[in-house]
Amino acid sequence: MEEVEEEVRRMVEQVKELHDTATSFVSSSSHEELSLRKRSSAVDASINRLHSTLLLSDKHLDPKLFDKLEEDLQRARCMLADGDTSSFLPSKPQGRFVTMFLGPVNVRASRKDIQLKVKEEYNSYRDRTALLFLVFPAILLTLRSYAWAGCLPAFPVQLYEAWLLFLYAGLAMRENILRANGSDIRSWWLYHHYCAMAMALVSLTWEIKGQPNCVQKQKGVRLFLQWAMMQGVAMLLQNRYQRQRLYTRIALGKAKRMDVVWGETAGVDGQLWLLCPLLFTLQGFEAYVGLQLLRTALTGVVAEWQVLICGILLVVMAVGNFINTVETLMVKSRFKAKMKRSKSRAELD
Amino acid sequence: MEEVEEEVRRMVEQVKELHDTATSFVSSSSHEELSLRKRSSAVDASINRLHSTLLLSDKHLDPKLFDKLEEDLQRARCMLADGDTSSFLPSKPQGRFVTMFLGPVNVRASRKDIQLKVKEEYNSYRDRTALLFLVFPAILLTLRSYAWAGCLPAFPVQLYEAWLLFLYAGLAMRENILRANGSDIRSWWLYHHYCAMAMALVSLTWEIKGQPNCVQKQKGVRLFLQWAMMQGVAMLLQNRYQRQRLYTRIALGKAKRMDVVWGETAGVDGQLWLLCPLLFTLQGFEAYVGLQLLRTALTGVVAEWQVLICGILLVVMAVGNFINTVETLMVKSRFKAKMKRSKSRAELD
Repeated sequence: MEEVEEEVRRMVEQVKELHDTATSFVSSSSHEELSLRKRSSAVDASINRLHSTLLLSDKHLDPKLFDKLEEDLQRARCMLADGDTSSFLPSKPQGRFVTMFLGPVNVRASRKDIQLKVKEEYNSYRDRTALLFLVFPAILLTLRSYAWAGCLPAFPVQLYEAWLLFLYAGLAMRENILRANGSDIRSWWLYHHYCAMAMALVSLTWEIKGQPNCVQKQKGVRLFLQWAMMQGVAMLLQNRYQRQRLYTRIALGKAKRMDVVWGETAGVDGQLWLLCPLLFTLQGFEAYVGLQLLRTALTGVVAEWQVLICGILLVVMAVGNFINTVETLMVKSRFKAKMKRSKSRAELD
Repeated sequence: MEEVEEEVRRMVEQVKELHDTATSFVSSSSHEELSLRKRSSAVDASINRLHSTLLLSDKHLDPKLFDKLEEDLQRARCMLADGDTSSFLPSKPQGRFVTMFLGPVNVRASRKDIQLKVKEEYNSYRDRTALLFLVFPAILLTLRSYAWAGCLPAFPVQLYEAWLLFLYAGLAMRENILRANGSDIRSWWLYHHYCAMAMALVSLTWEIKGQPNCVQKQKGVRLFLQWAMMQGVAMLLQNRYQRQRLYTRIALGKAKRMDVVWGETAGVDGQLWLLCPLLFTLQGFEAYVGLQLLRTALTGVVAEWQVLICGILLVVMAVGNFINTVETLMVKSRFKAKMKRSKSRAELD
């Protein structure tokens, strides 16, 4: 049976050879990667430096030329961030939240097409959950009126709370990953999701009171479910309009493809007048529900610590959302004023 | 201000050039990667084929030669799985659990040193949590006896349950990632963690009964905390002995470096006699706690669905752990018998 021996010998040779090839490939490609990384960050830094120089020399330049140069720089920046160079740009450090659950594994996609796949999946995840956000509480409230005689049973409400915990954990994870891949998500949205997770966890331990007199005791839960339905509608509108808007901006070379549709107010201009009041109403209602819970907790009708904590968290989230929406609107209007200025310049010429 | 214009022009050139370099690097390296992937899986398949051939021709071969050839193949397999080739071997598909929370992001480390860092972190995570597993319930039970007059308050117990949920989510995530990176974790341990997560979630909604008569009502919780303390001791012992054992096996070239210390019974042989009875006692106690809960639920002292579900989950986990421990022991004893056989052959010669 010498042939088996011969075959094993050849196999061992083959493995050694493959091993050497792999080693040299890994070392040479990581070498080249390092050099690309260095060059990319150098170029990125010079674009920023050049942009400040340009802004400083605004007065001395022909306005038309100024606009052209600024556009050139913007295009260069998009090319750097959107093409194959993107994976070599310095990234935000991986969030603590991700490391806590995953350990030190790298969640940054090395290729652009995978990054975009991650983003597409994130958008479709948001679409799916927005629908559930609307349907789940609607069913609970309908059944409460027509089947449960005004009293919500504990189990379906707790199922809904567990789903919220799962949903916000998934959102927080995905957005952390998108940030590591170069998206421009405001960090507030991540804190918002952590608050929402805390609230879901706390509300799970909150005993759902039954008969007698459950109509009064369950007022907080009912208000919360109504707020969730409004949130579902707002999410659906946002997802739809902002995705359209993003595609337009990408086509114009004005947004990077990894930017996402949060930010609440990046909607299509005409539809902003629909979305803005809805968002502010939503935030007002969220704060109202929070204050109601706080009042209940402090006047002692339902003296549980969970009510107090949920009230505080809701108020914090409402205020944070409000501040961030206003900030986004201000960035937007500043951008618009600038566009108008360049436009009128172009018309003057 | 022509120099600014010139600088912008040069910058745009530079970005284009960098972009082209990056594109050609990405395409050539992914091409080479694909070829390495193909060769690695081909070699992997032939090693397996050759191994079966070898086993079939056992009778016709000189026993000494047979052992040598088998060892050669084993070494080749380790070289393939442990060296730089490892990242090109076909991997298990990424678990559903990971995709559910992270989306389609790739958690497979492309370089061996990162894979090993992930594994080291996993081991230290287990060490840290094992200690908490021991200390947390010990504090609760001590305070119950000396400060809380025999009655556990709800908040600390719920805090512990939330921690368990967080802990098992982290373990499930990390082990899924390790599997995707080539570890040989038995899939039962993942199912075990999913069961434990479900139990933590359910027990959060379970109202902790207070006075009067809490000693009887809280019997389930108390038993569970006692079991958790035993689990903590067992985890500490396992982590310690199995890590030693693993290092020995790696040094002998018998285990791949990505294998982990679960499996409960891969301990150092001498210490197996300490670990095995402890593990079986633990599993017995787990089943006992589960059955106690089931009895409580069915005889109606505490008629909550949570008690029933927790009871069922505990019994399922105990049975699953038992079966998997026995299977690991059987694999082990088969391996030992084989080793003995080769040894006696060597002595006969």
